[in-house]
Amino acid sequence: MALDLTSLPKREDTHVGTMARGLKGSDILRIAAEIRELTAQGRKVCNLTVGDFSPREFPIPVALGEGITTALQAGETNYPPSDGVLELRQGVQRFYERALGLKYPLEGIVITGGARPIIYGTYRTVLDAGDRVIYPVPSWNNNHYVHMMGATETVVVTDAAHGFMPTVEQLLPHLPGARLLCLGSPLNPTGTMIEPAALKAICERIVAENRARQARGERPLILMYDHIYWTLSFGRVKHVTPVELVPEMAHYTVFVDGISKAFAATGVRVGWGVGPPALIARMRDVLGHVGAWAPKAEQVATARYLDAVASNTAFLESMRRQVDARLEALHQGFTRMREAGLPVEAIAPQGAIYLSVRFNLVGKAGLKGNDDIRKLLLEKASFAVVPFQAFGLMEDTGWFRLSVGATSVEEIQEALPRVEAALRGALNGP
Amino acid sequence: MALDLTSLPKREDTHVGTMARGLKGSDILRIAAEIRELTAQGRKVCNLTVGDFSPREFPIPVALGEGITTALQAGETNYPPSDGVLELRQGVQRFYERALGLKYPLEGIVITGGARPIIYGTYRTVLDAGDRVIYPVPSWNNNHYVHMMGATETVVVTDAAHGFMPTVEQLLPHLPGARLLCLGSPLNPTGTMIEPAALKAICERIVAENRARQARGERPLILMYDHIYWTLSFGRVKHVTPVELVPEMAHYTVFVDGISKAFAATGVRVGWGVGPPALIARMRDVLGHVGAWAPKAEQVATARYLDAVASNTAFLESMRRQVDARLEALHQGFTRMREAGLPVEAIAPQGAIYLSVRFNLVGKAGLKGNDDIRKLLLEKASFAVVPFQAFGLMEDTGWFRLSVGATSVEEIQEALPRVEAALRGALNGP
Repeated sequence: MALDLTSLPKREDTHVGTMARGLKGSDILRIAAEIRELTAQGRKVCNLTVGDFSPREFPIPVALGEGITTALQAGETNYPPSDGVLELRQGVQRFYERALGLKYPLEGIVITGGARPIIYGTYRTVLDAGDRVIYPVPSWNNNHYVHMMGATETVVVTDAAHGFMPTVEQLLPHLPGARLLCLGSPLNPTGTMIEPAALKAICERIVAENRARQARGERPLILMYDHIYWTLSFGRVKHVTPVELVPEMAHYTVFVDGISKAFAATGVRVGWGVGPPALIARMRDVLGHVGAWAPKAEQVATARYLDAVASNTAFLESMRRQVDARLEALHQGFTRMREAGLPVEAIAPQGAIYLSVRFNLVGKAGLKGNDDIRKLLLEKASFAVVPFQAFGLMEDTGWFRLSVGATSVEEIQEALPRVEAALRGALNGP
Repeated sequence: MALDLTSLPKREDTHVGTMARGLKGSDILRIAAEIRELTAQGRKVCNLTVGDFSPREFPIPVALGEGITTALQAGETNYPPSDGVLELRQGVQRFYERALGLKYPLEGIVITGGARPIIYGTYRTVLDAGDRVIYPVPSWNNNHYVHMMGATETVVVTDAAHGFMPTVEQLLPHLPGARLLCLGSPLNPTGTMIEPAALKAICERIVAENRARQARGERPLILMYDHIYWTLSFGRVKHVTPVELVPEMAHYTVFVDGISKAFAATGVRVGWGVGPPALIARMRDVLGHVGAWAPKAEQVATARYLDAVASNTAFLESMRRQVDARLEALHQGFTRMREAGLPVEAIAPQGAIYLSVRFNLVGKAGLKGNDDIRKLLLEKASFAVVPFQAFGLMEDTGWFRLSVGATSVEEIQEALPRVEAALRGALNGP
């Protein structure tokens, strides 16, 4: 007879420290719970809230899956080295040389269990408590990471006119004294990409700042460049890296990357960080204690798959086409509604699996803010989206993230008329 | 033509924060490098340094490997929930009820990428900077985790007479004001297990301490109980849990566990934490940001394998026998040497994959400390072992960890005469 512990208290916060107690819950998870409730009632929801892929719509490459099985059968089941299996670090080295024109030393590459540990590892390795981080909003989870580090922050609010990217003019006054600048392109949640000229201008100021610091014997400003979605770009903006634009940035740039988005493999847990070897070595030590390692068979299989250039190039091209088709369907739908006089706008697809759409309804039809708009769309149109507030923005601007990784073009086409009807219904009133 | 970054500096510590800069390197990795050098020269080394399994000696269960392949083919390739797939949390719930007599609520179970993130997560969730941690030495990596948290520590030095376990008398004066007590059984590095009566006495004092704290409105002392090796026990000491001995401890105990050791699956990266739901919920949030998730196909496969009771029971029994055979071969060998007058002693195998062996040579034959002894054994006997200093002990006591997961009984039998000859050679002088 087992000891029954099932009635242990579910809510009591006396057991944990200040940082853990102060962590804010995820808005997206709260929204997901609402959606689950609706679908449990039999409602068919067009769910554009999850920053993930549906394996039915986006399976991983067959060769990658088979490679994992082969590696398991070959006994790749014991600990990987703490910086990742050599074969994969070499594979990433060749991938970056081939696809991005950057030949890093092996010591500049560390493998982790997905890309997220690289973000955490960068924060944890670079910062002391109280150090200052600069990040734009909307952006993904930087607010949470700042809280976890006990860091201070400079939040730069971006706007649609600049593709939700910070400008050098916005950043410049905040560079002195800052320890970490976080940029992402293509960006979660906006699906927008930074213009090469804008990124170059920012990098030049970082280099100037760091030369001055070096002369004064001070620690440099590090740039975390999250380009996990870089293989998914469709628009007129070309994906570029800080290091190709300003080579001296190699001393200060940490790339966040992995297979999660490129190969629709979020649950396979293989990511990597690329950057200055001395910093990467410390991050390897930090993350070694955290234990955020990628499974070994998946590492070996990823190494082989990265070297199967023809195969993975074809897969990436197909991913790009399929993601773009969904984003285009949404964009065209909202463009038509706008032309029909509805207060909506959408930014043309650029990258990632996201579209930025504005439902310009705040203060109209009794809708007080983004969350009212979200509920209207969910309840009246079974159309589930995430407001930019979930990404650190405070203001009710009417902007939302629409994520297409778990949906089909057909589902989108079916949902758009419902959205239009819901908007007309709200604006025309009861 | 790629930008050549291969000459980026390998050593410069100006880029990282104080915590990362202050992390101490691993002694085991340093020793591993020496061994690699010898084997590269063609030397055959009996390598008892790695806390891991050789897949040749200890493959994972066939059904577990096949289950991963099946899950991959079924598209289990997208994000798992941040606390793990429900099926696996239910599997762990049933496993604990069946094998340990503890029925936890699902909210008390969180899945991670191996067990190590549970250790990190417990420290990170429970502690504020400056909070005090009590841990015995030798033990595994607590010193590093204390450093990472900026915590303070009370280090309790244990001895062979008490099986390298702390006693209630040692701990009692330090309980007031402490936030976290870390115990492990079977213990890495010693392979010893805590006596049920000793653990019960400690738990009773923790409960008394926490009742007094509750009356004063203070935060409780949490016990991290690392029993990742609990399925591997062979000796007269029965594995017990704090919660079965003192049920009130369910409010204060976090179990560290997973498949890594039980199923020789260190590279498969599936672990779990079990504890008070409110604490586990916070740890899930903390580790969600860290991103230390287990790969999804492995989670699904582990769930099914845990429910295949006959199959996994047979596997565990076979693991136990095979590990025990290796430990027994070592123990008998050193017992024979001791009986032959050599200054060695070994603790009879109890649990884990480790044997505690003392080479009582400090101050003899020109050997100044444990590292001299280690080098003697490596160079003269091709016998590679790790001194307890690698596990937080400062003193040169002559005690070493011998790990058998990557070796065979035959290799051990071949090595023992070399060890005996090396010891005689050193003691008889040149």
